Amino acid sequence: MAPATLPKDTPKKPPESAGNQPETARLAIVGAGPGDPGLLTMRAYDLLQAADTVVYDRLVSEEILALLPEKTARVFAGKASRNHFVKQEDINALLVDQARTGKRVVRLKGGDPFIFGRGSEEAQHLAENGIPFEIVPGVTAATGCSARSAIPLTHRELSRSVTFVTGHLKNDGALDLNWTALADPRGTAVIYMGLANSAEISSQLIAHGLPGGTPAAIIEKGTTPDQRTVLTTVAALATAIETHGISSPALLVIGQVAAMAETLNWASALIQDKTRAEA
Amino acid sequence: MAPATLPKDTPKKPPESAGNQPETARLAIVGAGPGDPGLLTMRAYDLLQAADTVVYDRLVSEEILALLPEKTARVFAGKASRNHFVKQEDINALLVDQARTGKRVVRLKGGDPFIFGRGSEEAQHLAENGIPFEIVPGVTAATGCSARSAIPLTHRELSRSVTFVTGHLKNDGALDLNWTALADPRGTAVIYMGLANSAEISSQLIAHGLPGGTPAAIIEKGTTPDQRTVLTTVAALATAIETHGISSPALLVIGQVAAMAETLNWASALIQDKTRAEA
Repeated sequence: MAPATLPKDTPKKPPESAGNQPETARLAIVGAGPGDPGLLTMRAYDLLQAADTVVYDRLVSEEILALLPEKTARVFAGKASRNHFVKQEDINALLVDQARTGKRVVRLKGGDPFIFGRGSEEAQHLAENGIPFEIVPGVTAATGCSARSAIPLTHRELSRSVTFVTGHLKNDGALDLNWTALADPRGTAVIYMGLANSAEISSQLIAHGLPGGTPAAIIEKGTTPDQRTVLTTVAALATAIETHGISSPALLVIGQVAAMAETLNWASALIQDKTRAEA
Repeated sequence: MAPATLPKDTPKKPPESAGNQPETARLAIVGAGPGDPGLLTMRAYDLLQAADTVVYDRLVSEEILALLPEKTARVFAGKASRNHFVKQEDINALLVDQARTGKRVVRLKGGDPFIFGRGSEEAQHLAENGIPFEIVPGVTAATGCSARSAIPLTHRELSRSVTFVTGHLKNDGALDLNWTALADPRGTAVIYMGLANSAEISSQLIAHGLPGGTPAAIIEKGTTPDQRTVLTTVAALATAIETHGISSPALLVIGQVAAMAETLNWASALIQDKTRAEA
């Protein structure tokens, strides 16, 4: 653990051996995966068992928190109330404070910390403060949900690429996405947090050339026992979300591969949206 | 386990409860992650310990195979000799045969089975033959390597999307990619198996508008103790691969985020390519 007095411009020194189990870091930014505790990595599990303190996100599942030993201190750094989040600067400062206690700290984030997780902003702040850290990747929602819904993200002849984006609005209220790229009929688009803006997502994709009948899946509460997969089309996305009362967290998977759930489904409650069935 | 006499058109019935631990399937298609055994999921580990037979890929690491109990039968279904692979049809048939023995079978694939893993083709074949299966996602190389190289795949202001493609040639010898989408300067492109065609990848990206000076990282043997990360530029990709003697498996990460490894690096042997340092 770096002493608290380390000047800010001291370069962070990587461990001498670039091995798998760095010994210097006592703070780890860890991906918790999509919800199912079975999808935690072994490294994540070990770090969670050894941690003195776990600082966790609102997307970390109850089932995963239930794995923590009784003694572990838990610090919630997520949604404090409706539409009011703990500010990222405050989380950054909290992590530095926690690391400086010398205790073993796990910063536990839903999914993978380097995909829409702002884990890199936290790592930047730690680096600026000379605090060693480890990054543990996690199963990101796209791969976790796609496995459980039996939707391959790529498939020979159907999809040669997969793109992950977020459907959240920027500060200026716009959905700032590369629609031409996402409308590629020979690729798969996975949209994290896309429920609220699904109508705009549909119309933009169609406006940029993706046929409205392209298969689309809505995966609600992916990898949890309550997972539901709704199969629909790009054009019917918003109505399907409303009809089936889909709530957050949910993932949208758009592309020919979505229809493969019909034959491959092995675990998810699969709902054929009426609009699609009639198409 | 479905009886071998099940007619081919019998719909595969998902387990009654869409829970996390399906009881019917005795064959699982499992992602082994990028190499480090610590990045196996807990579900993958449990299935590997319980398996009678493990059918594995050439991308599954020695360290992961070393976790198998002595008694486990191992079947290699990967590269048989230089440029000669076991055919996908033969692997598909092998999995059906193995499943019909009634033994617990794990089909273990490097990374995630639904991202460039052809796991979905294997699942299709199993479904067509009425054989129940489970799909266990894995940490895909992109997230595993990016964590170990300290390269966020998305980062506020720098990258709003991440796209995974493969740099392998199609049967007709062409690199069939959506270059316009990949050349988006505000996204991250991750290219699996891109070493052999790195020169064409560079020139296509530049021809489609990506500045040649855009940061690029080459991650060799990601998440293993021998991992190396070379930081270079899109223009210098092919020469950097040659200069540093990079060999397969390697991943290319292209976009502004690649340069973040300079400040965030915590575990990888980091090499600043000379071309880039001189730029």
